[in-house]
Amino acid sequence: MILPPGLTEKDFSAALEQFTAVVGKEWVFRTDEDVNLYRDAYSPFWNEEEDRVPAAAVAPDGVEQIQQIVRIANKYQIPLWTVSTGKNLGYGAASPALSGSVILDLKRMNRILEVNDKTYYAVVEPGVSYFDLYRYIQEHKLNVWIDPADPGWGSPLGNALERGGGRTPMRDHFGAVCGLEVVLANGEVLRTGMGALPESAIWHQYKYGFGPYVDGIFSQSNFGIVTRMGLFLMPAPEAYRDGRVSVQKHDDLIPFMEKYAYLLNSDILRGNMMLESPLLSYKVSQGRAVFDMPGDPPVEELERIGKEKNLPYWSALFRFWGAPKIIDAQWEYTKEKFAEIPGATFSDGRSYKFPNDIKIEEIEADTLAALGIPNLGVFGLLQGADGHLGFSPIIPMTGEAIFKALKVYGEMYTELGLSPSNQFAALPWSYYPRALVFLFGISTYKDVEKNKKNREIFKKMIKVSAENGWGEYRTHVAFMDDVAAAYSFNDYVLRRFNETLKDAIDPNGILSPGKSGIWPKRLRKDKE
Amino acid sequence: MILPPGLTEKDFSAALEQFTAVVGKEWVFRTDEDVNLYRDAYSPFWNEEEDRVPAAAVAPDGVEQIQQIVRIANKYQIPLWTVSTGKNLGYGAASPALSGSVILDLKRMNRILEVNDKTYYAVVEPGVSYFDLYRYIQEHKLNVWIDPADPGWGSPLGNALERGGGRTPMRDHFGAVCGLEVVLANGEVLRTGMGALPESAIWHQYKYGFGPYVDGIFSQSNFGIVTRMGLFLMPAPEAYRDGRVSVQKHDDLIPFMEKYAYLLNSDILRGNMMLESPLLSYKVSQGRAVFDMPGDPPVEELERIGKEKNLPYWSALFRFWGAPKIIDAQWEYTKEKFAEIPGATFSDGRSYKFPNDIKIEEIEADTLAALGIPNLGVFGLLQGADGHLGFSPIIPMTGEAIFKALKVYGEMYTELGLSPSNQFAALPWSYYPRALVFLFGISTYKDVEKNKKNREIFKKMIKVSAENGWGEYRTHVAFMDDVAAAYSFNDYVLRRFNETLKDAIDPNGILSPGKSGIWPKRLRKDKE
Repeated sequence: MILPPGLTEKDFSAALEQFTAVVGKEWVFRTDEDVNLYRDAYSPFWNEEEDRVPAAAVAPDGVEQIQQIVRIANKYQIPLWTVSTGKNLGYGAASPALSGSVILDLKRMNRILEVNDKTYYAVVEPGVSYFDLYRYIQEHKLNVWIDPADPGWGSPLGNALERGGGRTPMRDHFGAVCGLEVVLANGEVLRTGMGALPESAIWHQYKYGFGPYVDGIFSQSNFGIVTRMGLFLMPAPEAYRDGRVSVQKHDDLIPFMEKYAYLLNSDILRGNMMLESPLLSYKVSQGRAVFDMPGDPPVEELERIGKEKNLPYWSALFRFWGAPKIIDAQWEYTKEKFAEIPGATFSDGRSYKFPNDIKIEEIEADTLAALGIPNLGVFGLLQGADGHLGFSPIIPMTGEAIFKALKVYGEMYTELGLSPSNQFAALPWSYYPRALVFLFGISTYKDVEKNKKNREIFKKMIKVSAENGWGEYRTHVAFMDDVAAAYSFNDYVLRRFNETLKDAIDPNGILSPGKSGIWPKRLRKDKE
Repeated sequence: MILPPGLTEKDFSAALEQFTAVVGKEWVFRTDEDVNLYRDAYSPFWNEEEDRVPAAAVAPDGVEQIQQIVRIANKYQIPLWTVSTGKNLGYGAASPALSGSVILDLKRMNRILEVNDKTYYAVVEPGVSYFDLYRYIQEHKLNVWIDPADPGWGSPLGNALERGGGRTPMRDHFGAVCGLEVVLANGEVLRTGMGALPESAIWHQYKYGFGPYVDGIFSQSNFGIVTRMGLFLMPAPEAYRDGRVSVQKHDDLIPFMEKYAYLLNSDILRGNMMLESPLLSYKVSQGRAVFDMPGDPPVEELERIGKEKNLPYWSALFRFWGAPKIIDAQWEYTKEKFAEIPGATFSDGRSYKFPNDIKIEEIEADTLAALGIPNLGVFGLLQGADGHLGFSPIIPMTGEAIFKALKVYGEMYTELGLSPSNQFAALPWSYYPRALVFLFGISTYKDVEKNKKNREIFKKMIKVSAENGWGEYRTHVAFMDDVAAAYSFNDYVLRRFNETLKDAIDPNGILSPGKSGIWPKRLRKDKE
């Protein structure tokens, strides 16, 4: 059994006994068998010493139990790594950044405290899943939609705090957060925003409160344990339709992205766009990469093939939610705007009126998510590896930036001799209104040598991205220090600022040490 | 000449000399004549000792000068009260929460660093005004709109950090902030979000960065001096139209607000709504109040008068921005939804196609702001007093909450014997998607006794609002402690949390002491 750093077995046993007194013995996990469930099945450190291994897990059911656990952890200086529910695959699962941490597992706190379909928000605990919330809304016949993450077993609270994305107009999950309850490192309960009014009527309807707006510092952080969250929801639309726009030439991507950014920021296109390239997919089918790599056919040749095989260079499915007459007008206008690009083609897609038209079993995962229906379809994407690490750099929302990224990552793939097929979502998505995100999956294996190599690739991707001004929005626990180190402006002043906050509000460093590269004083190593 | 608390005249003179060495003598202000310009012309403490009086002002022109000023301020423990540009009328103008503070006036930092009309953002310094930004966009013929505050001489940076509101779909001004540069209390320069990447290509396109999202703690706070801000802008729409919806009966407000919240959160109605009541305006013209007060005619009688005089009980102008075919469909659908309320009436309003249709001189202030055109028309509203204090509580976005507010504030007006005419915007607006805000103006005078009474009224309004679960979103410097004290959950844990952060990042307490009720350790009084 691994121990928390610096703790004797005796003290740890005493602490676990005290945890047991708080939550009952069925909710403290200390056997290898139980604890291994919290390790990362996709770990890049399979069978290596650096694999992150928890010392135990404790699953409280309520704020008061958490307060007591935090006080015990302070007494013994035990690091608590908080998880909500779901799997967090690709980002480290429930495994901590620091081996020997005790997992604070909040899955039992799974109460849906409110769903309001007059002003469109929900209030949830950490252990509520997208499935739970969806079912609750269905059962109560409420006039709201959720925006599920992929996959649907995830926690709306956990995903929002990790700043995950979805498919609908509400896909900026942290952007939809309104009002938190947080257990601080000293065991006190903080309510943010309007929740600080004792009789608040607007805790989960108005975000900012009075004075500093602090909610953001509890996202991707180790500054507190969030036990309750307000989340804005979307009114159930009357109808849905989608349609595809394709353009033929390589350089058409420049005006394509300009028109997209215009329409998106005018609230005419309102959801996530997954950029596609039927022509580059053809190139992939010929054993090449989506990226630009040496030996690729020149653009003119590709365009010729595209013409011959009727494969457009760029394409995207656009989704519309709302009243039929409005979404029809939006799609008409979208076509008009893109028709300014010579050769642009259009095709109508699905069209649903709710609640009658929709047959869930006939709809693929992407569209289910866009219809607010949580699912597990994303797992169909995983091939030829034992797992993956999510690598998700943000780039500008322009065609020029996409071209540059295809070139930069192509050079990197060439230099590293990577298999061109090692690609997950090699063209970017639009989780955000003015930037794009790539969602690469770097493979992991039950093979030490392969993992070693892929870890180096991951670090190289961080470095090369940073050199081009692109940063990751989120990362795997094993790479949090590396990603944080890329944010190095002015001698790492942001990290030092975060450390100052951390030391002030968690002086014993008990909450999730190492999260997002933030270490408490006693565990801080010298980093260049 | 007033001195900073605890400072000798000799030390203060020495400090001012050092400020002078940094910025030049024309940019250090110490005569009463100059310093009085920073005082509040609308002060609720006219001719009283508690009036907030600065000791001096210093106006740097750049980050390095600010860094030097901050270092000098640390040496002498001089409080620096930062202001950007504009007047901040109703909220204390440029006057500090602590008399004897030195105003750090950033008006000289008025560079527009970038306006991007491909991905729709601007990058501004604190001294840039809405007028400046508007002119810049016009001169460069850029395809973007701004969302000005009332009035247009304000600072987009200052207003966003105060979390002000506007009229267009981009009216949540803090919500549009993306990426800050901040001089910290120790003189170091922090860049937030993606700005922490040294070669960032996405500082002002993606908000959250990696790790804790810290931007919020620099809003309404004294945690740093913001010297640069990214601000999302709206693509210039092709057209604008507006239309009015009216409903006849008192109780119609319930479905009216439900339909409004549905349409607003479906992105069909996209701007600020100012709720109106032609019938209650008639009541006001008869010497009564908008609020419910004793002696008011009963609802049935009012409804009868409304019918007779053709005055609807509730009414609102809805604005639409975008492509003609889309906004026409949105207005059609809006009418359909409200037509479900028996007796609802509709009238078409203005209709513009840009850039040709619009004649600025013919358009009133509200609509100018809704067209992204900064102006000073708001000053037409001020009557019968020498100034006002903004009082702005947030309430839920429901008819029930509005009824309750009219009753609660009516009882308060009755109890205090207030003039029913003492009303500014006595029906709420929708700066935010799931809550409403009242914008009252409590009068101030060049009269000590009247001010004394109105200060008590102001405090009473804070208290009564809090008892009903409603909190102010922003307040005047003279009432920051009182408003902060209403946010008292769990023995003022939010304030204590903010104080912990403050002491950690500004140990000498030099930055804007008292801002939002946050005092540094050395100036903290015991508050119950």
